[in-house]
Amino acid sequence: METIRIAIAGPRGRMGREAVLLVQKTEHFQLVGVIDRKNDGGDLADIEGFFGIHAPIYTDAARCFEEVRPDVLIDLTTPEAGKKHAEIALHYGVRPVVGTTGFTDEDIKRLTALAEEKEIGAIIAPNFAVGAVLMMKFAQMAAKYFPDVEIIELHHDQKLDAPSGTALKTAQLISTVRPSKKQGHPDEKETLAGARGATYDGIPIHSVRLPGLVAHQEVIFGGNGQSLTIRHDSFHRGSFMSGVKLSVETVMKLHTLVYGLEHIIE
Amino acid sequence: METIRIAIAGPRGRMGREAVLLVQKTEHFQLVGVIDRKNDGGDLADIEGFFGIHAPIYTDAARCFEEVRPDVLIDLTTPEAGKKHAEIALHYGVRPVVGTTGFTDEDIKRLTALAEEKEIGAIIAPNFAVGAVLMMKFAQMAAKYFPDVEIIELHHDQKLDAPSGTALKTAQLISTVRPSKKQGHPDEKETLAGARGATYDGIPIHSVRLPGLVAHQEVIFGGNGQSLTIRHDSFHRGSFMSGVKLSVETVMKLHTLVYGLEHIIE
Amino acid sequence: METIRIAIAGPRGRMGREAVLLVQKTEHFQLVGVIDRKNDGGDLADIEGFFGIHAPIYTDAARCFEEVRPDVLIDLTTPEAGKKHAEIALHYGVRPVVGTTGFTDEDIKRLTALAEEKEIGAIIAPNFAVGAVLMMKFAQMAAKYFPDVEIIELHHDQKLDAPSGTALKTAQLISTVRPSKKQGHPDEKETLAGARGATYDGIPIHSVRLPGLVAHQEVIFGGNGQSLTIRHDSFHRGSFMSGVKLSVETVMKLHTLVYGLEHIIE
Amino acid sequence: METIRIAIAGPRGRMGREAVLLVQKTEHFQLVGVIDRKNDGGDLADIEGFFGIHAPIYTDAARCFEEVRPDVLIDLTTPEAGKKHAEIALHYGVRPVVGTTGFTDEDIKRLTALAEEKEIGAIIAPNFAVGAVLMMKFAQMAAKYFPDVEIIELHHDQKLDAPSGTALKTAQLISTVRPSKKQGHPDEKETLAGARGATYDGIPIHSVRLPGLVAHQEVIFGGNGQSLTIRHDSFHRGSFMSGVKLSVETVMKLHTLVYGLEHIIE
Repeated sequence: METIRIAIAGPRGRMGREAVLLVQKTEHFQLVGVIDRKNDGGDLADIEGFFGIHAPIYTDAARCFEEVRPDVLIDLTTPEAGKKHAEIALHYGVRPVVGTTGFTDEDIKRLTALAEEKEIGAIIAPNFAVGAVLMMKFAQMAAKYFPDVEIIELHHDQKLDAPSGTALKTAQLISTVRPSKKQGHPDEKETLAGARGATYDGIPIHSVRLPGLVAHQEVIFGGNGQSLTIRHDSFHRGSFMSGVKLSVETVMKLHTLVYGLEHIIE
Repeated sequence: METIRIAIAGPRGRMGREAVLLVQKTEHFQLVGVIDRKNDGGDLADIEGFFGIHAPIYTDAARCFEEVRPDVLIDLTTPEAGKKHAEIALHYGVRPVVGTTGFTDEDIKRLTALAEEKEIGAIIAPNFAVGAVLMMKFAQMAAKYFPDVEIIELHHDQKLDAPSGTALKTAQLISTVRPSKKQGHPDEKETLAGARGATYDGIPIHSVRLPGLVAHQEVIFGGNGQSLTIRHDSFHRGSFMSGVKLSVETVMKLHTLVYGLEHIIE
Repeated sequence: METIRIAIAGPRGRMGREAVLLVQKTEHFQLVGVIDRKNDGGDLADIEGFFGIHAPIYTDAARCFEEVRPDVLIDLTTPEAGKKHAEIALHYGVRPVVGTTGFTDEDIKRLTALAEEKEIGAIIAPNFAVGAVLMMKFAQMAAKYFPDVEIIELHHDQKLDAPSGTALKTAQLISTVRPSKKQGHPDEKETLAGARGATYDGIPIHSVRLPGLVAHQEVIFGGNGQSLTIRHDSFHRGSFMSGVKLSVETVMKLHTLVYGLEHIIE
Repeated sequence: METIRIAIAGPRGRMGREAVLLVQKTEHFQLVGVIDRKNDGGDLADIEGFFGIHAPIYTDAARCFEEVRPDVLIDLTTPEAGKKHAEIALHYGVRPVVGTTGFTDEDIKRLTALAEEKEIGAIIAPNFAVGAVLMMKFAQMAAKYFPDVEIIELHHDQKLDAPSGTALKTAQLISTVRPSKKQGHPDEKETLAGARGATYDGIPIHSVRLPGLVAHQEVIFGGNGQSLTIRHDSFHRGSFMSGVKLSVETVMKLHTLVYGLEHIIE
């Protein structure tokens, strides 16, 4: 495979550090520079945790692209910075792979136009865990044949919101392929309030929070003497790196912007 | 093993039919009579579904015990009949194994006194599924070491009440060994009401209802980088027969009444 | 929906009985006749277990098709009879839905030509459990992104062969989308022979056999701090009827033969 | 609770670091010294990763015990060092909690005598994960009622040996309470060798190895229309710390040596 020249924005963040390691250990990936709001002009190898990994540090994204000419930018910063970096990257002919949320429809439209004008790819993905994206895709496919479905998501007990974003996204995707319906027995009754969970468009969602857990989700379909279960377990944040790698490889072949990993997974 | 002479009350019910089959296929069990509110004086073999299984039918329990002298009565009738049959059985020196609920503390006390006076055993068990009883016992034991726990019970969608009786019983048992506590993050928030389930003494309970399912329960404990899960799956009502068999064998060695299978399981 | 006129071959078999019930309870399905090697000229309602379900019985399939003019034949007989019935059905313009195995490539080719000549549909499906077919389809899709995969299948302990046909079929499908590879550590060692399971094209398969279980399979993919699990549980043979229903509805819109339910599931 | 004064041997190892953190965050635990083969005479706070955690470093265990008078020694070093430290600790009236394997029956006997002579407690535990120990204990209990059982253990694909030590230990414990038996159908046949797994005293063991997984085990019991599953998931090495904490608290109340966490868990 041909070597892909990569710049990483946000190398000191938790995800950024994983991305640096990913590039290091992937034979056909080459780290040519990093974008960091601190340490301009320095060498990544001088920062704690990057011993021996040399790459010039730029605070100005435009200068980075001009000087080291990356093929791809991996951006794991904030929504605001990610948006700005993606735009600059496209201007310089650098394909952005952005792992932040917060892009509006307007932003997507503008960046898509820019990518198509430049005839290069761009990928924006709120969730880089390939397994989670497949789980959602399969859930949507299965719901056509099994309209009765419940979602159980399980996380560590430091998580503040319930249900999780992934559970809600899964329910939304399911609701696009099956008519809204009331599940369970028409006369069912909760003798303790909340037992049947939260409901999104008729789909019950149950949120488990326990110390020791990481991030897990089960989508259970039932019907006609059978059940079909799709489960994703994320054991640590390295799970996101599979999607970053896939995106870097895929973005090289695109000539437009793709929003959401589910659209590059067949 | 010595042969145990058995009478069955309620042979035409769904559980009763299973019990008849159980006795038939267990080498050291012998069916010596059945108690049925219909068909007095007839032969079980003449009733649909019992072809070739001969046993005299009695509507009067006392006469049954007098004439066929069973060692054990298996009663799978109603709470009222079960209570009455148990008392008569003890009077005649027949050990009752009763699978109905609805016994009051007063009933238990009276029958216990009677069993001890007669120096024979008696077993009353609201749940005969040995696996479910073990699940509850293990859950109670684990809660001492893992105070954070959630219960997920899954049933077919014809079930009317949520949560299930077994889930509530499990939560009760757990609450006897751990101090009541609020689980999850103190600031956690449901963005969709019900996501965190019902709560019994601080223990979240989630009820899943889907066509195709039968009767399942998972108790999940979490803590310190690990989780411990105890799951029981009941695939058909034959699951109760393991407990009936165990009870018949155990009741022969008792000299008092035992309430609840958990007390004969070590 | 327009009513579909249906004939069933093999009504007295275990699957056939379920199919009769399926047709009975589906509003737009109508049972117009049955093909049975016994009871020619009789009424289905006179046979044990079909009380009140009237339909003429034919031993000669051709006569059945001529006289009652079904739209669809559901065949749940033997490989030999199924093959013969499918051919006769197509000749008479009746769409066959056949749930038996044992068709050769040659058979499929000949019947496909016949279906296309008659411009009607035909479906032959070795496995009618929609959930199992989806599991296999999803497994095949996931293997492109997660080449490391193991299969665990669990059945009752009366099953003679291990691994199951579904496990082998799943492994075959996976092997079409990923290069053959040795999984696990190159230096891994079994200290007890068999621990790492059977291997099909590098994919480990583990067969669990326990009393009480029915038919279950799990396909587990692992990679990069995550795992993805697809599980199918079949609790009783009614699970096959979802696929029969789907096939009857789908075959009405086809103009060729389709082999395998996976090709009518999108 | 009264404060427990603790010394830790092996603070720079992976487990040792976790133990230091455990002591730090437990209110009634106090770190009074560490035993390290390097850095004698220094302060733990000066070593990378222990910023702000002050404790004197000793290379000589005896001097440590003499000078800082700990109540308990937590030893997470090697089998040889652990054995030596345990003996010295007992001589000085310090209760050892040792997390290494490699103790012979002879060693255990000698150290038990010493503990009883000094009238203090000692705990040696090859596995400190409370959840894993409970899983084994429950498996042993359940096997009395469900003699048909299979073990599935799942680990990351860097693990070299199969089956895992925990799976073997579980099978050994089960074999102490049920008669050896051949499981599965007497005529069952492997069409692919290894499908039915490894066998320990008639108990099938299946080993799954996949990247992304950590350390997991399922013990599945089946019988009479039901199954009972006990599963332990270890997500990171912090899972061992629950057992270390429990051991420190328990050892204060003992007057003899206990080998194996299962004996202090009721």
